Amino acid sequence: MNIVGIAAEFNPFHQGHAQLFKRVRAQGAQGIVVVMSGCFTQRGEPACMPPSVRRRAALQAGADLLIELPLPWAMASADTFAAGAVALLKGLGCVQHMVFGSESGNMAQLEACLQALQAVDGSQALANALAEGKSFPRARMEAVKMLFPTLDVAPLSRSNDTLALSYLRACAQQKVQFTPVAVRRDLSFLSGAEIRQKLEKNPADAWPHVPPEAATLYQQAVSVGAAPFCFSLAERAVLAQLRCLSSKTLPALPDVSEGIENRLVTAAKSAQSLQELYFAVKTKRYPLARVRRLVWHAFLHSTKEDRAILPPYLRVTGIGRQGAKILQLAGRTHSLPLLTRHSACKELDVVAKRIFHLEEKATDVYHTFLPRVQPAGLAQKVEILRF
Amino acid sequence: MNIVGIAAEFNPFHQGHAQLFKRVRAQGAQGIVVVMSGCFTQRGEPACMPPSVRRRAALQAGADLLIELPLPWAMASADTFAAGAVALLKGLGCVQHMVFGSESGNMAQLEACLQALQAVDGSQALANALAEGKSFPRARMEAVKMLFPTLDVAPLSRSNDTLALSYLRACAQQKVQFTPVAVRRDLSFLSGAEIRQKLEKNPADAWPHVPPEAATLYQQAVSVGAAPFCFSLAERAVLAQLRCLSSKTLPALPDVSEGIENRLVTAAKSAQSLQELYFAVKTKRYPLARVRRLVWHAFLHSTKEDRAILPPYLRVTGIGRQGAKILQLAGRTHSLPLLTRHSACKELDVVAKRIFHLEEKATDVYHTFLPRVQPAGLAQKVEILRF
Repeated sequence: MNIVGIAAEFNPFHQGHAQLFKRVRAQGAQGIVVVMSGCFTQRGEPACMPPSVRRRAALQAGADLLIELPLPWAMASADTFAAGAVALLKGLGCVQHMVFGSESGNMAQLEACLQALQAVDGSQALANALAEGKSFPRARMEAVKMLFPTLDVAPLSRSNDTLALSYLRACAQQKVQFTPVAVRRDLSFLSGAEIRQKLEKNPADAWPHVPPEAATLYQQAVSVGAAPFCFSLAERAVLAQLRCLSSKTLPALPDVSEGIENRLVTAAKSAQSLQELYFAVKTKRYPLARVRRLVWHAFLHSTKEDRAILPPYLRVTGIGRQGAKILQLAGRTHSLPLLTRHSACKELDVVAKRIFHLEEKATDVYHTFLPRVQPAGLAQKVEILRF
Repeated sequence: MNIVGIAAEFNPFHQGHAQLFKRVRAQGAQGIVVVMSGCFTQRGEPACMPPSVRRRAALQAGADLLIELPLPWAMASADTFAAGAVALLKGLGCVQHMVFGSESGNMAQLEACLQALQAVDGSQALANALAEGKSFPRARMEAVKMLFPTLDVAPLSRSNDTLALSYLRACAQQKVQFTPVAVRRDLSFLSGAEIRQKLEKNPADAWPHVPPEAATLYQQAVSVGAAPFCFSLAERAVLAQLRCLSSKTLPALPDVSEGIENRLVTAAKSAQSLQELYFAVKTKRYPLARVRRLVWHAFLHSTKEDRAILPPYLRVTGIGRQGAKILQLAGRTHSLPLLTRHSACKELDVVAKRIFHLEEKATDVYHTFLPRVQPAGLAQKVEILRF
């Protein structure tokens, strides 16, 4: 069985995602496994719709098996996000290809960039550029340009290519048995960011840009107050909590460096809005997405310890048409605990259990910030979506 | 110098309070010391306006010295509230009378009720009434009626008289050097609760019922978004936090008994609003005010350990006309650390410091729920209001 793995946020699931599914099917995929983020995203913000809605949309559009990417890796830098997703696809043991969108869609070019990056890591050229106060991506690109003057460095400044490079790096580091494949992104569709903007201003403007079945799901969720996520409802809660940060817990936060924790404490005392807080913490070296992630990790009490390892379990959150067949296969190949029922979490080891409960707590908290507060424990109640 | 002590919330400061000031002055008081609650009140809800505004109104109307009643005693049952306030007035060492409003205003009647209550405590009659599932106040009143059939028990069912009895009990227990005096409440004025209702619906309707100077202060605070407190802005924060309650911390909450902590955890998972949460936790024996206090203590992480002792310091938060003179006197008589500057908290012992910082944290959190988020650290910045 030719099974393709994809890492995604589906924030929300849109035409581009549906198109990717169609293309991998057309190229012979018999099963699509998606490692999917829950309530919090890579850019450090809560997802626009709760996971249950986004999962349903993905299953409806043809995903066969959904695996949860736990919070510590879902809300992380590109490298950590990619490492988490790759580890889960590897842990399933029956994936043949990992497919990801990229602006270039050119594997040779991406591979060349990856080699250049590896050569630049720890180089004097990089150290010099960093010493000039440049951000890490900027410093790295300049070092690459200096050491490899003829290389096309365009992928280094494009967001999907950057993530593609992270996937390639993770696949190499983890010595996966599957083949990574970059697919050129179809830019004729609106991106997730563009759709979220429409959703925020006037949801009706967003519906034409998602598959009709997904639009129906989204409209339904909005009509009962289960979507979208409301920044304004969460803002005071985050500000209040951050004012209680103890200096003892700060160094335990993920991604803390350069004394950013002190900036966070100071800003939390004076900021009168969450945006103001983000911008008060941001520095040239510590970009906005990283600040947002830091703030939400602090709010959710997640720590760097939570991601000291790679994701330690495979939690199935959705089973589509070929899902049962893939699970049957994975039953013989998986190298991580495979959870298909909520109660199975009891058998996890201490570390895995902590991550499992962190994910649940984050989910419960997220659901208080929807237009109508949604009951907690949805993760337990909904169990697995079956299509 | 004839100094009168008063315990109050000033939630908000109104005509009845101004009238009480006038009456104690007319009876010869040369100084008025007020032990005043901060951001959270006895009925288990955040105050309608921040302490700085309420303090200013009280000083303007003639209070000479304001002392802070810290959170553990401010948001507590009548007995604990009274014990905290009495301890602070006693700690000052120069108060001659403690004055409090009551429906009866009849000291002889109150004293008789108090003696009956003491006789009833631990009696079989009380145990029997409680065993029938009656609330504590109801069971107590029935036991008093049974044991003292000729006593007028009306004070036991009236809110100000009940608090008056708590003051009398605390004065007796703490062997204070001042004389407790019950003053009959003037019922021609609107109560705090009635004014808060107007404030919530349409602030302009509230202004005629407070002294004109106070009305000006309140209007000013409202116009810059520093008042009133917004339940709707705090609701999601409280719900989110309560979903994260760990079963380990629950028994440490103040006033937890009868397995109420388990009801709280269950309700926090399903409640879709704070009101719904309150009513889901409430029982016949565990009334609403107690539930509200429990919820906010849980939200603020305050514990029963915080009120294991009586208030351990006198924090001056406002100095009126005779304030300096009273402080001079108290300099020779005080038996608790007397803080007139924020920095003096450094000299407190470990327990006192913990309570001091809890109060500050609660204040910072409260200020995120005003119409416009107010900067934290106001307690430090404003230091002491001087009139």
